[in-house]
Amino acid sequence: MEAFTFHNPTRIHFGVGMISKLGKEMQDAGIKSCLMVAGEGSIKQNSVYTQVLDTLNNHHITVHEAWGVQANPTLAKVREMVTLAHTLKAQAILAVGGGSVIDSAKAVAAGVFLDDPWDAFGGNVPVKQALPIYTVLTISATGSEMNGNSVLTNTDTKQKWAFYSPLVYPQVSIIDPAVQCSLPFKQTASGAIDAISHVLEYYFVNQTALSTQAIDDALMKTIVDMTDRLMENPGDLVARGNLAWCATLALNGISGMGMKGGDWACHQIEHAFSALHPDIAHGEGLGVVFPAWIEYMSEKYPSRYARWAKNVWGEDSVSRGVQRFRDKIEAWGLSGSLRDLGIRERELPELLELIMIRPTVGAVSKLSAAEVEALLMLAY
Amino acid sequence: MEAFTFHNPTRIHFGVGMISKLGKEMQDAGIKSCLMVAGEGSIKQNSVYTQVLDTLNNHHITVHEAWGVQANPTLAKVREMVTLAHTLKAQAILAVGGGSVIDSAKAVAAGVFLDDPWDAFGGNVPVKQALPIYTVLTISATGSEMNGNSVLTNTDTKQKWAFYSPLVYPQVSIIDPAVQCSLPFKQTASGAIDAISHVLEYYFVNQTALSTQAIDDALMKTIVDMTDRLMENPGDLVARGNLAWCATLALNGISGMGMKGGDWACHQIEHAFSALHPDIAHGEGLGVVFPAWIEYMSEKYPSRYARWAKNVWGEDSVSRGVQRFRDKIEAWGLSGSLRDLGIRERELPELLELIMIRPTVGAVSKLSAAEVEALLMLAY
Repeated sequence: MEAFTFHNPTRIHFGVGMISKLGKEMQDAGIKSCLMVAGEGSIKQNSVYTQVLDTLNNHHITVHEAWGVQANPTLAKVREMVTLAHTLKAQAILAVGGGSVIDSAKAVAAGVFLDDPWDAFGGNVPVKQALPIYTVLTISATGSEMNGNSVLTNTDTKQKWAFYSPLVYPQVSIIDPAVQCSLPFKQTASGAIDAISHVLEYYFVNQTALSTQAIDDALMKTIVDMTDRLMENPGDLVARGNLAWCATLALNGISGMGMKGGDWACHQIEHAFSALHPDIAHGEGLGVVFPAWIEYMSEKYPSRYARWAKNVWGEDSVSRGVQRFRDKIEAWGLSGSLRDLGIRERELPELLELIMIRPTVGAVSKLSAAEVEALLMLAY
Repeated sequence: MEAFTFHNPTRIHFGVGMISKLGKEMQDAGIKSCLMVAGEGSIKQNSVYTQVLDTLNNHHITVHEAWGVQANPTLAKVREMVTLAHTLKAQAILAVGGGSVIDSAKAVAAGVFLDDPWDAFGGNVPVKQALPIYTVLTISATGSEMNGNSVLTNTDTKQKWAFYSPLVYPQVSIIDPAVQCSLPFKQTASGAIDAISHVLEYYFVNQTALSTQAIDDALMKTIVDMTDRLMENPGDLVARGNLAWCATLALNGISGMGMKGGDWACHQIEHAFSALHPDIAHGEGLGVVFPAWIEYMSEKYPSRYARWAKNVWGEDSVSRGVQRFRDKIEAWGLSGSLRDLGIRERELPELLELIMIRPTVGAVSKLSAAEVEALLMLAY
């Protein structure tokens, strides 16, 4: 097993009604005012907003509100919120929403100490300070509630880039699965594919990390089973809860220990899709890339991909495993190809250019531009 | 899935050569002198002691040494070390050893702020402060390197009691699987049973925590497979590493989320064995109690025990699963019954008295004294 360091200081309160714990947590940390970052208002329809205001009021915490974060969140919106955080002298950033909202909150928390928040994403300017971050999760997908990652799109340059800092792990994240029962199934399924993809980014990198692979098998199988249950009954709280916790574990470190940091070719490829088409849901895009990537890579490394087909899908061949994965994605109502996603063949050269910001992508195998092009054709 | 809170702030450095990271970690925390707690000298035979001194010297940290912690560590020894920590004005406690050493270090770290360290174990005096704890692990078993638990024996009263405090999670723990290659196989196997037992204490409590159960299946199966490999080849570093990481995960919180805190009847029963016979290895004792407990409990709750037999052992009946578990314990050279452990039938009444400090034990089912007696007979 390869060497690794594990450290994840985020405190999770998980369960129905747990939003009520937020106010005391922030009060105990000495916070008197915060900037709440939120999306386009769904939290006003499902009682989350009211629950958040109640617990903050009960603990005498002033809340200023910044609404309007969209899926595939943008640098422009973050810059606007950084200005607001400065003006309000916010002591903490509270993200109430899904991965886009939490990622934006992290960029704001670090951005108030930088000339420009995008500096963190270039990787040239190190993040040395950040406001404390609290989150109330409303859709399980990205794992951002328990890690130090943030992904943002610079719409001017069509760059969808990430940054990582140990300083932007949330202090406390609240995961109440009940608030996810009103999600449209397509969002639930897209989140499930996102979570499976996080596990897959690690799974094939190192065959000596047997304990991590066994945990990853467990996570992937449970995510598939729970999503199937939620397609039948969106109010199934047992399935909501288990899907939610698996999605958190899929990118909080546990799923990748001994995996040398993971592969990440598929994420880099998908980020180019949504940089070009901001309407593409991240999870849905990954559901197109990953089956093609597994198909392509399994010819190079048959045995490690065979393990996945066997352990996750109970199939004796990779091609049958990939078929089961594709069938599942289709059954969940998600796109099965680049074409279905709305990407046109003539856009492929521009996509390729956005993907290949370095000479190769990936770690299991370092894919050249020609190989990524072949993979895109396979996914088209 | 039941509500839970997860928070584990310990930083793990895992891998061959990682002991070298200790000095900088302590220096970065501003520590200039520490009290090193250790066992009976095995770390002088396997280079661990030299590696620890090197990294501390390189970072100008003065180390005072307290040797002599034994398996089933005692309150008397902890009291002695608390006095030493006071005299030396130690800024931190460094545990270099296995679970007994780390548990003792935790009792010292909290004990310096109490009238008597045993106060923490009674649960009557809350732990409000503790010195920071650092650990270098030399045998994977208890998970103490990444949790807030400590178990100690008061030999005067024959009480083997535990305490938990969020203040005694180690700041940093180093897990170098290579230093475990020289362990006698019986110690490796006893540690493996201890780790499996931690998972089992949670596994049966709640059938709605499907994600946790799936992870637990993965942990138990991997522990069994890796221990089998180590019986063949004690120097198998892949097996050492994966066993070590599973043992840490078995009691760092991950294996028990949504399981309402676990059952713990078997641990309470085993603690009485070793309070009476301090020479009984904790893991070996648990290997006698657990099969009997599963057999006994499966008559009350057939389906949840059937899942274990199926998923961990591939067997269609609990009795065959228990048989496979017992066969494995025997194959690893560990005792299969109370009689084999050296406990005499005439000691059973005293055992029962030590176990039943409350009217019932356990959570899956609250076992009365009569039921525990029946269980002991089954294990005899």
